[in-house]
Amino acid sequence: MHSDHRAVSVVGLGSMGSALAAALLDGGHPTTVWNRSPHKARPLTDRGARLAATPEEAIAASPLVVACVRDHEALRAVLDPLTGSLAGKSLVNLTSGTPEQAQENLAWARSHGADFLDGAAMTTPPGVGNAEVMFLYSGSRAVFDTHRPALTALGDPLYLGADAGTASLHDAALLGLMWSAMTGWLHGTALVGAEKTPATAFTPLAVRWLSTVSGFLTTYASQVDAGHYPGDDATVDVQIAAVDHLIHAAAARGVDNGLPELLKATMERARTAGHGSDSYASVIEVLRNPTAGR
Amino acid sequence: MHSDHRAVSVVGLGSMGSALAAALLDGGHPTTVWNRSPHKARPLTDRGARLAATPEEAIAASPLVVACVRDHEALRAVLDPLTGSLAGKSLVNLTSGTPEQAQENLAWARSHGADFLDGAAMTTPPGVGNAEVMFLYSGSRAVFDTHRPALTALGDPLYLGADAGTASLHDAALLGLMWSAMTGWLHGTALVGAEKTPATAFTPLAVRWLSTVSGFLTTYASQVDAGHYPGDDATVDVQIAAVDHLIHAAAARGVDNGLPELLKATMERARTAGHGSDSYASVIEVLRNPTAGR
Ligand SMILES: NC(=O)c1ccc[n+]([C@@H]2O[C@H](COP(=O)([O-])OP(=O)(O)OC[C@H]3O[C@@H](n4cnc5c(N)ncnc54)[C@H](OP(=O)(O)O)[C@@H]3O)[C@@H](O)[C@H]2O)c1
Ligand SMILES: NC(=O)c1ccc[n+]([C@@H]2O[C@H](COP(=O)([O-])OP(=O)(O)OC[C@H]3O[C@@H](n4cnc5c(N)ncnc54)[C@H](OP(=O)(O)O)[C@@H]3O)[C@@H](O)[C@H]2O)c1
Repeated sequence: MHSDHRAVSVVGLGSMGSALAAALLDGGHPTTVWNRSPHKARPLTDRGARLAATPEEAIAASPLVVACVRDHEALRAVLDPLTGSLAGKSLVNLTSGTPEQAQENLAWARSHGADFLDGAAMTTPPGVGNAEVMFLYSGSRAVFDTHRPALTALGDPLYLGADAGTASLHDAALLGLMWSAMTGWLHGTALVGAEKTPATAFTPLAVRWLSTVSGFLTTYASQVDAGHYPGDDATVDVQIAAVDHLIHAAAARGVDNGLPELLKATMERARTAGHGSDSYASVIEVLRNPTAGR
Repeated sequence: MHSDHRAVSVVGLGSMGSALAAALLDGGHPTTVWNRSPHKARPLTDRGARLAATPEEAIAASPLVVACVRDHEALRAVLDPLTGSLAGKSLVNLTSGTPEQAQENLAWARSHGADFLDGAAMTTPPGVGNAEVMFLYSGSRAVFDTHRPALTALGDPLYLGADAGTASLHDAALLGLMWSAMTGWLHGTALVGAEKTPATAFTPLAVRWLSTVSGFLTTYASQVDAGHYPGDDATVDVQIAAVDHLIHAAAARGVDNGLPELLKATMERARTAGHGSDSYASVIEVLRNPTAGR
């Protein structure tokens, strides 16, 4: 067996775990799978995966074990009985959880002789295996380096640091950005939809606009790090004036305004805190300080 | 004079108007400028623009007049005295306003023998002149077609329809997406910043993630148009579970949770309305119906 195609075991075959196992098979890794409900393994065994009868058998089969179950409690339910089988194994967890849970998992794994890397798949299952898609990792650098070929079969692996909690903290931060963007997009889609523009006509504009907005974020990131927010492109005051157009247009069309009202209130807090002539990046000052500008 | 380089007059030389005039000069258009405070014309006259002493003179100088002042009231203050000079002119308005104001401007211009196109610059001033940047237009198709070379000097001109209000409605919808995305990004930046990750380290991940999220929007746009939201990638229920991780992580680090709390409440309304097993696109149902799921 070529060293770049080491054996991998996948524990948990929900929609995400099944996609992970499929990508490993596509990448040429001998793959053993286990799931509480074994019937979900069928499409994978049809493609050459080996089905383990128990989680112990799955762990024994490979130096690298990738776990992806519903949540931290499910992960502990599967792994806690297996402490005797873990010595020398590399455990990569792609179950979502909190930074504290990731840190707890790392300490637990190490106390049983295993090494541990926590991860976050920044995609839905259909994106697994795409080299553009980010997989964030933190915890053991040795696991990341040793098993990089397998991790690369899943997507683009990014190592964020030795603190096992870092990947899930970044995951939470990026999901917050996703829900914000998706809800803002749905609000805009509802607004133009009230005038009969289909979502499929509005969305290409929204996607192009997000790439322009990404340029603003890049400009503003340096301002955030500098703690200095020159309003030479567009100021908080200018945005407050414009958000009223959105609120009025949405209200006139019966679209819920909870999101733009909150955004406006947040901008007004920034203005009250003295940032009216600063760029939008200054809004971070009131997010970091929940009582500022109230 | 080559027909692709027709004369243009720019009325209003704030940061946006100045950028518009500069891009027209760069594009080889003979450019006449006017501003209430004439000193702001200096950088443009240094580059070859002609300074008009009055708005009448600016309008007389060119077949195409581009107006960009602070707001609708400022626009009316400048234009209302000029009704006698407008016959035969093409007026393009890039002042931000509501759809109703754009419709009023079109009716007013036509009643004085001018034709009218309303527009929205989807950029800050430094992006003007970039062919990637969208300029949205609606109103007179004849103005759009006749003056396309000048409009192309400003950015990528997109014609959205004969209703003059359409460009500003789309502008409002896209700005709502921008404020949502920027605030979600700032929230995430504050969250990881609490653990000493600089904004300039987080933001490249955020920018890559927005391109993944853009793929979700494209998938979900078809679902919105179909009114059918299969949750085969990730369901509203799964998102509700994950948003709690964000809320807890942010609360533990003293970051304001107004935005994620609102997003969670919106998702819960979708679940209450029967969309727990549907995709996030189903959230549009509760945005379109402010009493749904309450
Ligand atoms: N779907 C996405 O887009 C996505 C994206 C990024 C991250 N994630 C994360 O990936 C993880 C899995 O998500 P998913 O979409 O694959 O969920 P899913 O389709 O609902 O699958 C859940 C998996 O967890 C297993 N499980 C649940 N409780 C268990 C228990 N007590 N003991 C053993 N196994 C248990 C299930 O086994 P059974 O088959 O026996 O029920 C199944 O394999 C979650 O943490 C999710 O947040 C998902
Ligand atoms: N900046 C951006 O990023 C951006 C992006 C998209 C759209 N816009 C829109 O573009 C428009 C202009 O924005 P801006 O950034 O250029 O603003 P700005 O720098 O504040 O400039 C405002 C302009 O309006 C003029 N003005 C204000 N009141 C007037 C009045 N009563 N009579 C005559 N002129 C008057 C000002 O003249 P004085 O110089 O004499 O004060 C100045 O030329 C706004 O509607 C804005 O929403 C801006």
